[in-house]
Amino acid sequence: FLKLWKNVKIVALMAYGMGKSDPRKIIFSAKMGLALMLISLLMFLKEPLEDLSNYCVWAILTVVVVFEFSIGATLSKGFNRALGTLSAGGLALAMAELSELAGEWEEVVVIVGIFIVGSCVTYAKLYPTMKPYEYGFRVFLITYCFIEVSGYRTREFINTAVSRFLLIALGAGVSLVVNICIYPIWAGEDLHYLVAKNFADVAISLEGCISGYLNCVEYKRVPSKILTYQASDDPVYSGYRSAVQSSSQEDALVGFAVWEPPHGPYKRFKYPWKSYVKLSGALRHCAFMVMALHGCILAEIQAPAEKRQVFRCELQRVGNAGAAVLRELGNKVKNMEKLGSEDLLYEVHEAVEQLQKKVDKKSYLLVTSEKWEIGERFEEAVKEQTISTFSQHVKSLSDAAIHFDSLNLSRSWDDKTDNSEIKYEPPFGVPANSSDNQMPQLTHMLNKVDTVPEEDDSKTYESASALSLVTFTSLLIEFVARLENLVDLFGELSEVAKFKEPVDSPEAI
Amino acid sequence: FLKLWKNVKIVALMAYGMGKSDPRKIIFSAKMGLALMLISLLMFLKEPLEDLSNYCVWAILTVVVVFEFSIGATLSKGFNRALGTLSAGGLALAMAELSELAGEWEEVVVIVGIFIVGSCVTYAKLYPTMKPYEYGFRVFLITYCFIEVSGYRTREFINTAVSRFLLIALGAGVSLVVNICIYPIWAGEDLHYLVAKNFADVAISLEGCISGYLNCVEYKRVPSKILTYQASDDPVYSGYRSAVQSSSQEDALVGFAVWEPPHGPYKRFKYPWKSYVKLSGALRHCAFMVMALHGCILAEIQAPAEKRQVFRCELQRVGNAGAAVLRELGNKVKNMEKLGSEDLLYEVHEAVEQLQKKVDKKSYLLVTSEKWEIGERFEEAVKEQTISTFSQHVKSLSDAAIHFDSLNLSRSWDDKTDNSEIKYEPPFGVPANSSDNQMPQLTHMLNKVDTVPEEDDSKTYESASALSLVTFTSLLIEFVARLENLVDLFGELSEVAKFKEPVDSPEAI
Repeated sequence: FLKLWKNVKIVALMAYGMGKSDPRKIIFSAKMGLALMLISLLMFLKEPLEDLSNYCVWAILTVVVVFEFSIGATLSKGFNRALGTLSAGGLALAMAELSELAGEWEEVVVIVGIFIVGSCVTYAKLYPTMKPYEYGFRVFLITYCFIEVSGYRTREFINTAVSRFLLIALGAGVSLVVNICIYPIWAGEDLHYLVAKNFADVAISLEGCISGYLNCVEYKRVPSKILTYQASDDPVYSGYRSAVQSSSQEDALVGFAVWEPPHGPYKRFKYPWKSYVKLSGALRHCAFMVMALHGCILAEIQAPAEKRQVFRCELQRVGNAGAAVLRELGNKVKNMEKLGSEDLLYEVHEAVEQLQKKVDKKSYLLVTSEKWEIGERFEEAVKEQTISTFSQHVKSLSDAAIHFDSLNLSRSWDDKTDNSEIKYEPPFGVPANSSDNQMPQLTHMLNKVDTVPEEDDSKTYESASALSLVTFTSLLIEFVARLENLVDLFGELSEVAKFKEPVDSPEAI
Repeated sequence: FLKLWKNVKIVALMAYGMGKSDPRKIIFSAKMGLALMLISLLMFLKEPLEDLSNYCVWAILTVVVVFEFSIGATLSKGFNRALGTLSAGGLALAMAELSELAGEWEEVVVIVGIFIVGSCVTYAKLYPTMKPYEYGFRVFLITYCFIEVSGYRTREFINTAVSRFLLIALGAGVSLVVNICIYPIWAGEDLHYLVAKNFADVAISLEGCISGYLNCVEYKRVPSKILTYQASDDPVYSGYRSAVQSSSQEDALVGFAVWEPPHGPYKRFKYPWKSYVKLSGALRHCAFMVMALHGCILAEIQAPAEKRQVFRCELQRVGNAGAAVLRELGNKVKNMEKLGSEDLLYEVHEAVEQLQKKVDKKSYLLVTSEKWEIGERFEEAVKEQTISTFSQHVKSLSDAAIHFDSLNLSRSWDDKTDNSEIKYEPPFGVPANSSDNQMPQLTHMLNKVDTVPEEDDSKTYESASALSLVTFTSLLIEFVARLENLVDLFGELSEVAKFKEPVDSPEAI
């Protein structure tokens, strides 16, 4: 008994939690109860319409089936039901007339008719573009068979059809009135907020990716949920995943939203709901880049921490600016504001340019020279050096003039001076022939690395690890490129949906 | 009239096309017609059970609602319907007893009972984990209200409940017998082939990406369908998109497949359908990398064609090997074979290693040195040169000994000698001081580029364009890394699903 009590408590807590997170669900449930109550009430009271009351089941059925969470879904189901019932009624009456002409073959005609109609309607239902009307086809079948069968038995085809239709109309009417008049829940509004939320989600993921990458977050073992693309708690992952996965939800919502009459802030006929979905698709296109960025964090091969620090400022700036653009767009979608006069992308483009310049300047950090074809001969030339105090060397050299050559080796230095976070950038400007003195000191590294036994593998990883930073950077740049398209589409949406002019506050952007 | 005839012809053609592409749809439609016919037949013939026949609508309703495309869906809906009806019947009878005790307040108790039950059931239905039982909740509501209402009117609670239940059982029975005994359509089979098809789709995309990239396919204007992630005809795009988007379809199919009894090649209770979905999730994880590769083709910033050609062999090999692994896995899933004794990943790992080595050797092609911090001073040192026959210079130099420095400029050379496909790799091995002679010749390029007016922008793009090749390469490598996880999961699936041992044919892999 104690266990039962515990279970009840758990269920109650879950129910409370759901109600708290979305109070509309409570209201919807109460509305459903109310609609059922009203329909049942009608059945009780009517006395003169006894035979109508016999078919009360149709009204109840209609309410239960038609009463959907959002107004759009209710309207679309109601329409389906009405159309299915009416056309099936018409066809059934025509068939009944026909079968009566058949005389003694009547039964055969009715049965064969049911088979043919049943097959054809089912076949039509399977056609992909008929998917939204699936429910209508079902209603059609039920109605047709019912009228044929019960009509044959009672010989009251018209009566059956009419009373049935009246009750369905009554059920649908009660559903609509209760659902629309009491605290309506609009699919369009849901869609609107879902799109806005997706922007915020992607922004969170982007920031998470950048800061994770700069702080060298590593997954000891990549969660198997991520590896198999299932829902997971990881905030970076769930951010973009929810934006990507919301596509089917959006499609469903837009299917209902187009049925809804103008309401609230969406005060136009033919409100461009499809543009919201399109915008969200463009956001998804951006989210795939964030996903690829996250892929760099998930990858086995990782760029060394010191190198990431070199680009920290720039990466951080692009990330922040990108996330700010996403947030700003999300807010503008939410508040239905047009773009301001300032260029939303200005800051992020500036930031990307900085990043590009930095990459240009520092791209020697991103490659390893050890294996260059020419590198081998280079090594042959300098063979007999020893290295014991290499990292000290580098430090002592950092202010000296060094030949251009040496820059290509900087990758190796970093490996040796692991945690000292070198930002060593040898100045250039000395005559080229001074290199004669420096080169041997700088290249013994090569020999050392070459004498390590499993040279091949480790080298491969080394170069790949540096390239991983390049990948991260250029994915980020591509992300920003895709932002442009996103802003364009937002502009389009804000035009067709007639968003309001923004209040130009000084702290905008 | 002619127009009508034309329309009829179009519809007939569409119907014929659908039937040809999936004949199961025709069979299913005929089965549905048959089931409806059988149910109607019963209603005609029975004479002694007149009052049962009165409720024939329930049997028709059950057939129409329960009869689903796949066996799993039929069984799960049938179960839902049975459970909903039984529990609602029980509750309704209990409530009826209770309300009779209330005496003159009976109506109020019934009405309030309907409100409370309706609200609570609707609320429970909205709980996310209850989603698969949604239909059961609806049936519960319909049954409960119907029994309460019609029972109140006729005072035959038990009779209503029992006759209703008998007819529903009859309808469900006819549906199940017809659906299972005549050409059954299994959701599990669909899931199985869908997963296998996804492998083939991703393989096609991967090959398309590689060959598109190497042949420098460029989108004049990226199709807006791709930018907004909508379905498009582009074969490369639709390949990975269908694999990514199939996730909701898989979830639906697995929900039905678990209801299906052991059948055909899936001769075990608790067949591990979930493992198929997991494998498909891992494939999706790989497909995201293919998507990112495609992103490189879609990007505005493109690596120059000559540079791509340098890596052609290696990229092609990795692509082919990767696609071969995907195809092989897809076939193995289809044929339910275990992995062979050979290492499926051997060839692709070899290919990746080759690619890595090539990248190591040629990474100087991937960076531009012009903007290195030291580069500026470098340029100051050599200022007054002119360049008119630069590309000739390069060719004449190709066999000469050149100083190491020059390599960092190769990016610029490529730009100048555009279509000549340089594979110029200056040998190294001359004493460093010989550089004095060469440097001026090699660095006038820098000056030239610097005098171009919109230097900054073009430079930024230049370096980014070279980095784009790095990105493509390392995304490809990451793709291969993810293949490993895919093969692991396949091994897991082949164990739990007890795939058969492969026939070791010599042309395997």
